[in-house]
Amino acid sequence: MERRDSADTEIERVASSLMAGSGGDSSIFRVYKHPVKSVIVQIITQLQHALFPGYFEDSQLSIRAMRYQLCSLLEEILSGLSEQISFALRFSEQFKSAPQETIEREASAIALNFLSKLPVVKEYLDTDIEAAYEGDPSAFSKSEIIISYPGIYTGMIHRLAHELYLLQVPLIPRIMSEHAHSVTGIDVHPGASIGKYFFMDHGTGIVIGETTVIGSYVKIYQGVTLGALSTSGGQKLKNVKRHPTILDHVTIYSGASILGGETVIGENVVIGGNAFVIKSVPEKTKVSVKSPELLYKNGDKSVHKDLEKSDDWFYMI
Amino acid sequence: MERRDSADTEIERVASSLMAGSGGDSSIFRVYKHPVKSVIVQIITQLQHALFPGYFEDSQLSIRAMRYQLCSLLEEILSGLSEQISFALRFSEQFKSAPQETIEREASAIALNFLSKLPVVKEYLDTDIEAAYEGDPSAFSKSEIIISYPGIYTGMIHRLAHELYLLQVPLIPRIMSEHAHSVTGIDVHPGASIGKYFFMDHGTGIVIGETTVIGSYVKIYQGVTLGALSTSGGQKLKNVKRHPTILDHVTIYSGASILGGETVIGENVVIGGNAFVIKSVPEKTKVSVKSPELLYKNGDKSVHKDLEKSDDWFYMI
Amino acid sequence: MERRDSADTEIERVASSLMAGSGGDSSIFRVYKHPVKSVIVQIITQLQHALFPGYFEDSQLSIRAMRYQLCSLLEEILSGLSEQISFALRFSEQFKSAPQETIEREASAIALNFLSKLPVVKEYLDTDIEAAYEGDPSAFSKSEIIISYPGIYTGMIHRLAHELYLLQVPLIPRIMSEHAHSVTGIDVHPGASIGKYFFMDHGTGIVIGETTVIGSYVKIYQGVTLGALSTSGGQKLKNVKRHPTILDHVTIYSGASILGGETVIGENVVIGGNAFVIKSVPEKTKVSVKSPELLYKNGDKSVHKDLEKSDDWFYMI
Repeated sequence: MERRDSADTEIERVASSLMAGSGGDSSIFRVYKHPVKSVIVQIITQLQHALFPGYFEDSQLSIRAMRYQLCSLLEEILSGLSEQISFALRFSEQFKSAPQETIEREASAIALNFLSKLPVVKEYLDTDIEAAYEGDPSAFSKSEIIISYPGIYTGMIHRLAHELYLLQVPLIPRIMSEHAHSVTGIDVHPGASIGKYFFMDHGTGIVIGETTVIGSYVKIYQGVTLGALSTSGGQKLKNVKRHPTILDHVTIYSGASILGGETVIGENVVIGGNAFVIKSVPEKTKVSVKSPELLYKNGDKSVHKDLEKSDDWFYMI
Repeated sequence: MERRDSADTEIERVASSLMAGSGGDSSIFRVYKHPVKSVIVQIITQLQHALFPGYFEDSQLSIRAMRYQLCSLLEEILSGLSEQISFALRFSEQFKSAPQETIEREASAIALNFLSKLPVVKEYLDTDIEAAYEGDPSAFSKSEIIISYPGIYTGMIHRLAHELYLLQVPLIPRIMSEHAHSVTGIDVHPGASIGKYFFMDHGTGIVIGETTVIGSYVKIYQGVTLGALSTSGGQKLKNVKRHPTILDHVTIYSGASILGGETVIGENVVIGGNAFVIKSVPEKTKVSVKSPELLYKNGDKSVHKDLEKSDDWFYMI
Repeated sequence: MERRDSADTEIERVASSLMAGSGGDSSIFRVYKHPVKSVIVQIITQLQHALFPGYFEDSQLSIRAMRYQLCSLLEEILSGLSEQISFALRFSEQFKSAPQETIEREASAIALNFLSKLPVVKEYLDTDIEAAYEGDPSAFSKSEIIISYPGIYTGMIHRLAHELYLLQVPLIPRIMSEHAHSVTGIDVHPGASIGKYFFMDHGTGIVIGETTVIGSYVKIYQGVTLGALSTSGGQKLKNVKRHPTILDHVTIYSGASILGGETVIGENVVIGGNAFVIKSVPEKTKVSVKSPELLYKNGDKSVHKDLEKSDDWFYMI
């Protein structure tokens, strides 16, 4: 009984303390509702079904039925997304004190605009799937790629989030990209601009920064960072181009880092595994870390053999 | 009203465009149903419960009741998996135009064959758990390892997916391994062959390619790649051995890469952190990256001290 | 019919084999119930809602209603956690043969003690959010950080798991930290001690070992390992300080490894990307990997230019 009372008292104390705490933009967090992460994740799933009709359904449909289902799905996406966008717009400078009606009208218009982009997004995704199939000897079929490849899943979410980013929707693009990051270990900021035939193999640990620009036919392996040289400037660096530009037909092998807003990787360049690149590279160049020096120790003998000193180019997956 | 009409028109337009798009193996995607990822993930959970009775139940059971529950679970797995395999077989060359009855009979036989392998899979997993307990000073108990270690979860899914891979089931093995990849950041292709007492510590970023062969008592840390030297050959490299062979009692520390189908790592070899190995290593050898040269800059003075030039062997976790 | 019979027989055989298998602490696994992972994940979500009222609800509430909801949530957390702790205590040396009543009393006391720590945990988390906002030019707002940043999610779970670790609760802290690892790719052992204003950017692949000690204002990027020099001692190394100490105002760029229990990184140190540090570093020092030597090959010419031989400090994100 006493025990129970002390628990009640403690709950009251903790609740008061947590309610008083700021933890962020305290002036508004109780007045306006945030976009709801779980709802946005559900909308992503609906968008995946809509972009790939026939791949994720759990029942067999006739073509006619599939078309009806798709229309109904798009209708749901439109209304769900409109609502989430209306929550998000409250957090933008432009709309923070606008009448609710204005916000909702704007949110609906943005959602419809976004929906109209889906066929183009699909067109880009088809080229990504093509690139994955051509580039990966272990790919069994395009179905396998669509259903299971983390690079395609992240690419899909990125292309969707990027459209909302261009439409200046706050919060939602980043919630989407961090969901992809959580599922695949691939961290692509919604601001990054990416061309056709883009393939990320394996993917875990890839980081692509906000102001990165990537051309067409670019292939990137796990652990690659397209990043900034330094962020010690913090918020003062906002809107500055801090991340590199990668031109067409570039392959970047695993663990490589390419850093800096003025770094441009020319067309048809290959960057070898673990390379650390902070200056521009001219077209048609192969860049590789100097043959790694390894120490070999066998039983009692310790020998330093530079076995790898060859001119061969090696790339890693 | 007008607004509503324009939304309807837009939905019709987008739906038509998405239905027309190919996005993959368009000739069949509307005729045959794909294996359903969410169902396969559920079957994985059922298999985990079946392989470790008593570890994941949310109610306390008598041994007798647990046995009944296990039989019922195995029955469910058998029927669920048969159905998914029947969907998958349609995508194999051999069965793509077979009568539905043939497909279903074959799918049932494969599922039963798979089920009969579970005791052997369990035997291997028990050795993996043993290796994790012996190899990790921060392991509290085997229960902790079974319930929470990502290397064990991925190892379990890999050993199951590998059985289905050997039974030549299309699509499902890769859906299973990419689910593990998503949960743990460890990417093991279902084709890889792995011996007993296998331990992956931490695990994030590990990549193990399709044609890798791994012996017994092998220990691998986070960020290790067992990969191919180049994939520029794409689909032409299918079925070629492109990934290394690792013999018994080998430890590979974090961030190391071992590449190439002809690369063999001998028994009792230790590969140091971040090593980049593209040639075979004889047995009982320790391989380490040459002591890393670091630059130290303190206040105004810039000194290049090669402090680390020692013969000590260092390995990283 | 025969087919059906053979399936039944096989199920019986497999069930018997799996029931007989040990797979862990077999002496107890059928007698005592384990903490249930899915329930613990649900408690984590409840704790997230409680720590950040107004950020994750899917309905708009008045302040008064929010306070009632928070009290009710804390009550649920208290009772759910008490039950899970009572399951876990059975696995500690001290309580393994205690009467059930003693276990339950102890579990309730621990859960209440844990609950009373939430305001302090919140205070620390607020400093982490502040550090993330100040340190990341691409952060749009603190709301965005709270809702979507993986470093904040992992930090929250770590600070909660660490309290339970200090209260010597078995199993649950590691289940919590491995859940965070699974969601974000960041692996922080619940034993690690971490000061205020801690920021992990991007995060994928970070590993922080059990006996690591981290001061205030420390910033860590993706792929950083704070690890041990060797674990070949296995269980014999339990309770030995094996991981480094990082003092205040230290920044560690991506891919760097700092290893060893006697390694101390002084105040105001910057560790450059990919550095491999196994000795202590005095305060106010910048440590960088020697400018990476790259090979450039262009068309027919193969040139080895050491373009990067400058004294510039570079850090990578």
